[in-house]
Amino acid sequence: MKLRYFPFTIVLKDTFTISHSSRSTTPAMMVEIEHDGLTGYGEASLPPYLKENQQSVTEFFKKVDLSEFNDPLDLDIILDYINNLASGNEAAKAAIDLAVHDLAGKIKNLPLNQLLNFKKSSGIYTSFTIGISSKEKIKMKISVASSYKYLKIKLGSEVDKKNIEFINSLTDKPLFVDVNQGWSDKYSALEMINWLAEKNVVLVEQPLSKEMIKENGWLTERSPLPIIADEAIQTFDDIELVKDFYSGINIKLMKCGGVRQAKLMIEKAKRLNLKIMIGCMTETSCAVTAASHLASLADWIDLDGAELISNDPFSGMKIIEGMIQIPDSPGLGVTKIRKYQT
Amino acid sequence: MKLRYFPFTIVLKDTFTISHSSRSTTPAMMVEIEHDGLTGYGEASLPPYLKENQQSVTEFFKKVDLSEFNDPLDLDIILDYINNLASGNEAAKAAIDLAVHDLAGKIKNLPLNQLLNFKKSSGIYTSFTIGISSKEKIKMKISVASSYKYLKIKLGSEVDKKNIEFINSLTDKPLFVDVNQGWSDKYSALEMINWLAEKNVVLVEQPLSKEMIKENGWLTERSPLPIIADEAIQTFDDIELVKDFYSGINIKLMKCGGVRQAKLMIEKAKRLNLKIMIGCMTETSCAVTAASHLASLADWIDLDGAELISNDPFSGMKIIEGMIQIPDSPGLGVTKIRKYQT
Repeated sequence: MKLRYFPFTIVLKDTFTISHSSRSTTPAMMVEIEHDGLTGYGEASLPPYLKENQQSVTEFFKKVDLSEFNDPLDLDIILDYINNLASGNEAAKAAIDLAVHDLAGKIKNLPLNQLLNFKKSSGIYTSFTIGISSKEKIKMKISVASSYKYLKIKLGSEVDKKNIEFINSLTDKPLFVDVNQGWSDKYSALEMINWLAEKNVVLVEQPLSKEMIKENGWLTERSPLPIIADEAIQTFDDIELVKDFYSGINIKLMKCGGVRQAKLMIEKAKRLNLKIMIGCMTETSCAVTAASHLASLADWIDLDGAELISNDPFSGMKIIEGMIQIPDSPGLGVTKIRKYQT
Repeated sequence: MKLRYFPFTIVLKDTFTISHSSRSTTPAMMVEIEHDGLTGYGEASLPPYLKENQQSVTEFFKKVDLSEFNDPLDLDIILDYINNLASGNEAAKAAIDLAVHDLAGKIKNLPLNQLLNFKKSSGIYTSFTIGISSKEKIKMKISVASSYKYLKIKLGSEVDKKNIEFINSLTDKPLFVDVNQGWSDKYSALEMINWLAEKNVVLVEQPLSKEMIKENGWLTERSPLPIIADEAIQTFDDIELVKDFYSGINIKLMKCGGVRQAKLMIEKAKRLNLKIMIGCMTETSCAVTAASHLASLADWIDLDGAELISNDPFSGMKIIEGMIQIPDSPGLGVTKIRKYQT
């Protein structure tokens, strides 16, 4: 097996503003693993607020030598080797995990969900994300998302209530609220969540700083809505840290190291009665399609990452009338349609 | 653009017997055209009773220089160049035609049927082919084909009537009959066709030698069933030769030089009120999937070629409950799942 990687700049359709930051591109590293005439595709999406970047991924990949591995079906052996090369580097590890799963699915002629013995449920809805924006922009976005069943609203600014009231005036769709650690005080957070519970909101992601674990536990105990950990949880080991303080966890391939880790996290979270959301970064269809194969295992799905970008090098999972359409073709089910341009 | 090609031996699941011949493999040449980080796939299937073989295809490909072409969307320019390199060599030309169409579809992020502005009809049935076999084998094949709506029966042996009666005793599915030039006399052919018309048969392919054009015209005039030209027609120019003597034509990518030629043939045949059947050789899912994108333009579909082989290097069009499922992914919509082994 042979690893190749390509720095790539994901270009967003619109400048994306969440609590504390705003940007119009996301750096990424695209991966192709060649084996026996087949190509497996993978991706590391590297939003600037996380630790990894193209340089760190390159350094990690320089340590990787896949030439000794002759069978992509030895998934566990290969991914254990990758995992033990260094700690952290979850997005880099995810990129390799995705490409090896893609190869394994192609070799077995099975789409990823069948390779891993997941149900491929139909009729799974994803939310459409609306960043912190002007009223005009929000109105435009709601119209763009007319076929979606759920909207995900980024909160954490001075105008949270006004924005929610404005959205309620335009649509009665159920809302996911994502605060991205944007609220600083548990009392006002609870007051806000009580208010949101009357405004068609069905869950709240990461209301407080990820460091405020106990305050979040206080909030979860009193909240009428499920409180989902996002920034507070990255990998499998973090489940222990948040399990008593949140209602559920948002699992993202780029945070946890890929499909194998995500599957383990879901299994553990289910045993602990934690709710499961499957989310994504701004990513290409490569990583989003990989995540879509896990959708049947989740309570909520937030996989519109590839819809937000303008230079997707892949075709894969599609969203039709707000429902995700997982491809039937083997592996991830993605087709490369454009070269990676930095 | 860069052409690579790989000799490949298609292995049949069962020895396949038609009038005059019997075999268990089909030689092929697989094609990959690289352009700008993308790969387009194509195939030349080379049944031994046709003129081309791996050597002739190799010789043709040695003449091909795609390095001057920088845009696969220049389909007509590229395919005119290929067409003018030499006469004949239709399967070799088809392989390149397929790969360039695959690339163009990927670049435009459109499945082939949309790239060419065809309707993608749903609910199109294909027939399942039953070669000349023992009763036990026929019975087994009919059971294998239980989900198919149409069966295609190969005739041209001493036991034609017995076989048809036997099939009628097992199933009341409509039958396509393919004689592969197996009958030698127009009078007994007409007698046989009159008899078949009472036996659930809906069409007859190539009853007489392809040289017996006028005799075939005599037969078509008197036949209660449509008579379809197969061996008697290869390319666009042949339409003129058969148009007055057959009810319709069987178009195969490997005979006519690929998708562009097939489309032109269909358009001309429709103007002439000829019926259209889209068929295939024993081919991999690469060529069969390409042909499936044309299905909405045809009266009858016979695209089970990839179902008959045991070492398909591609996943693509599927047949579910006898209906063809054309992939939605861009280009041909095929995924390479196995290396080409000779």
